[in-house]
Amino acid sequence: MSTATYRLYDDKADFRKKAEGIAVGLTVGSWTELPEVAKQKMEKHLGQVVSVEAHEPENAAPGERYADITIAYPDANFSRDIPALLVTVFGKLSMDGQIKLLDLQPSAAFLQAFPGPKYGIAGVRERLDVPDRPLLMSIFKSVIGYDLDGLREQFLQQALGGVDLIKDDEILFENPLTPLERRVETCIGAAREAERTTGQKLIYFANLTGPTSQLRANARRAIDAGANGLLFNVLAYGYDALAELAADASIDVPIAAHPAMAGAFYPSAFHGIAAPLLLGKLMRVAGADLSLFPSPYGSVVMPKAENLAVQDALVNGKLPQAASFPVPSAGIHPGLVPLILHDFGQDVVVNAGGGVHGHPLGAAAGGRAFRQAIDAVISGTGLEQAAARHEELRIATERWGIRQP
Amino acid sequence: MSTATYRLYDDKADFRKKAEGIAVGLTVGSWTELPEVAKQKMEKHLGQVVSVEAHEPENAAPGERYADITIAYPDANFSRDIPALLVTVFGKLSMDGQIKLLDLQPSAAFLQAFPGPKYGIAGVRERLDVPDRPLLMSIFKSVIGYDLDGLREQFLQQALGGVDLIKDDEILFENPLTPLERRVETCIGAAREAERTTGQKLIYFANLTGPTSQLRANARRAIDAGANGLLFNVLAYGYDALAELAADASIDVPIAAHPAMAGAFYPSAFHGIAAPLLLGKLMRVAGADLSLFPSPYGSVVMPKAENLAVQDALVNGKLPQAASFPVPSAGIHPGLVPLILHDFGQDVVVNAGGGVHGHPLGAAAGGRAFRQAIDAVISGTGLEQAAARHEELRIATERWGIRQP
Repeated sequence: MSTATYRLYDDKADFRKKAEGIAVGLTVGSWTELPEVAKQKMEKHLGQVVSVEAHEPENAAPGERYADITIAYPDANFSRDIPALLVTVFGKLSMDGQIKLLDLQPSAAFLQAFPGPKYGIAGVRERLDVPDRPLLMSIFKSVIGYDLDGLREQFLQQALGGVDLIKDDEILFENPLTPLERRVETCIGAAREAERTTGQKLIYFANLTGPTSQLRANARRAIDAGANGLLFNVLAYGYDALAELAADASIDVPIAAHPAMAGAFYPSAFHGIAAPLLLGKLMRVAGADLSLFPSPYGSVVMPKAENLAVQDALVNGKLPQAASFPVPSAGIHPGLVPLILHDFGQDVVVNAGGGVHGHPLGAAAGGRAFRQAIDAVISGTGLEQAAARHEELRIATERWGIRQP
Repeated sequence: MSTATYRLYDDKADFRKKAEGIAVGLTVGSWTELPEVAKQKMEKHLGQVVSVEAHEPENAAPGERYADITIAYPDANFSRDIPALLVTVFGKLSMDGQIKLLDLQPSAAFLQAFPGPKYGIAGVRERLDVPDRPLLMSIFKSVIGYDLDGLREQFLQQALGGVDLIKDDEILFENPLTPLERRVETCIGAAREAERTTGQKLIYFANLTGPTSQLRANARRAIDAGANGLLFNVLAYGYDALAELAADASIDVPIAAHPAMAGAFYPSAFHGIAAPLLLGKLMRVAGADLSLFPSPYGSVVMPKAENLAVQDALVNGKLPQAASFPVPSAGIHPGLVPLILHDFGQDVVVNAGGGVHGHPLGAAAGGRAFRQAIDAVISGTGLEQAAARHEELRIATERWGIRQP
């Protein structure tokens, strides 16, 4: 059995009855009126109510009364793919009143069908030869309208600052100025150049786009041109597209899942799919080596508790799949590093855009300021103390301030 | 330029400034600080604020202040596919506060890339030899746990009632009891048998499921086994998967789009994607010959104005794509037919489950009651009058009542 947990708001429903209706309605369709012999045949397909935790305060205001309902669905009812699981547990039901899908606990048998991240945290670290410090990712300042030279210069400046990972913008599609293969060659060329200066390795995540049927071929084109990572807008294509890429041995580079469109799902209390499932567990099961999600620090925010629940879903020991790197994104500057590392620990990717490019001394200095901040926190040196020693970090903290945990 | 319209709630934002931030931020990234020469190069990629209609009542209560904002995005910025369009206009932005995507007006050039429905309303009618009356679709009572004989008997009873279209349950996946090809052979066999009695044609929509990369092959397997229609859970795979099936000449049967998971997107006022876009325009552009959506009549409801906006998006003359059949679903019984035809006109599929199977004389009688109701409304006979002449309709209206427009 695989279970699904929902939060269901209703001002007057009998939640237990509602739960039983879901368990029957989304599986065998009807039960009590079935003849005994049919029941025997159908029993192995019948959903079960696992729990109903009702929150029914006396004199509840409208919209205050809800229940968390967990239903178990027999694995015999659906095939071993995420579309089948989601359509079973939240296909029709998503439209049935105020109901949000909070979590899924797929069975061991279901999970076994998913190899998960090919690299995950450990594999990405190995590729970079960075065994334990937090990683630093940076994002292009802007990409649309840039030609190859413009992109190369941006890439090089970021890379020279000592970032570990650079990703394409998720809105950079196949285009005549920076077509995929030439873009990859250009950026990887810049990466190699920077590596000679920094002495460290770098992964470039090229944005994987195009028609669904061409994703694998486009991924291979990017890899053949030198890409050592792929960025993928998972929710625009469905989890299964990611799962198929992750399960494909020929796609032998890490995949970073971008959360584009996630805000259509998770922010409402009354509808949609909770972020820890949407951007955490399902991304990991489907095989994301890294998963980006809105940090609790910037302008595009997700509450911190939800953020940490996303992180937990990406890294906890409860799944057979390798752990995915959490990448809390948006609004990140070097002065936040103590807080990020406090909240997320070492297995985190510090991901910055404006915090790198907006550095008064330029993007390379911006990257260095982040690396100085990370080193300071790891070594137990205070950020102020490190800033006194490092010009880049000093200027960054003067600009953006320091937020201690 | 392709435009996107959003409703943005904010208790204090300067909506005009916010709109300008979106237009720049989701295209060239920055503008005012660009040197003149860069502006010249970037101008053709720059988004434009088309309109800002602010709703800012004095002393607005929290959550009451909003603006409808329309932004134009240069087509040069994205490739001609729906994932690229959605990620551009609502990728990151979906996570930026309380914002809902209300509508998209893709450019003519963008729309040209989409052949749309291969059959649409006209083509489905032609396949059925039913030039103008509303069509009748029925749904299996239950499918999980049934073997081929059980499914065949259910199919035959529905078909004998004179329904035009029968669809698989969206939660019926590949399974050992009713594997795709044998299921199709069985159901189409029953359809042929019924056709000899009813003298009319019938389309069977087999549920198209499985790994994304196998959808085309599975569709062909179903068609080769005799399926003359396909049901597809579009939102679980992404619109592009549908668009590719629709553009594929070898998939030469109508496709019905199921709205499974749609409730994760459309019901919130503050987040997600509005139903007329989600289940109307995008389904049509992507090529759904029929689009199912929750009717305003049953337990799983969508407000009527929203329903009619979905219908309009499926059939209006504003798109180059053929019109898709609207299929308002859930809670439909024969006594609702006058209301459905009043609301939707003749180009509608009356889609019933319980209203067919729950008929006291059985599913065949249930189908006949619907056909009697449809004929009565078309011919201008009142339902009461027709019920006096037809036992099936009489019993149905006694059971479920009649709702006049």
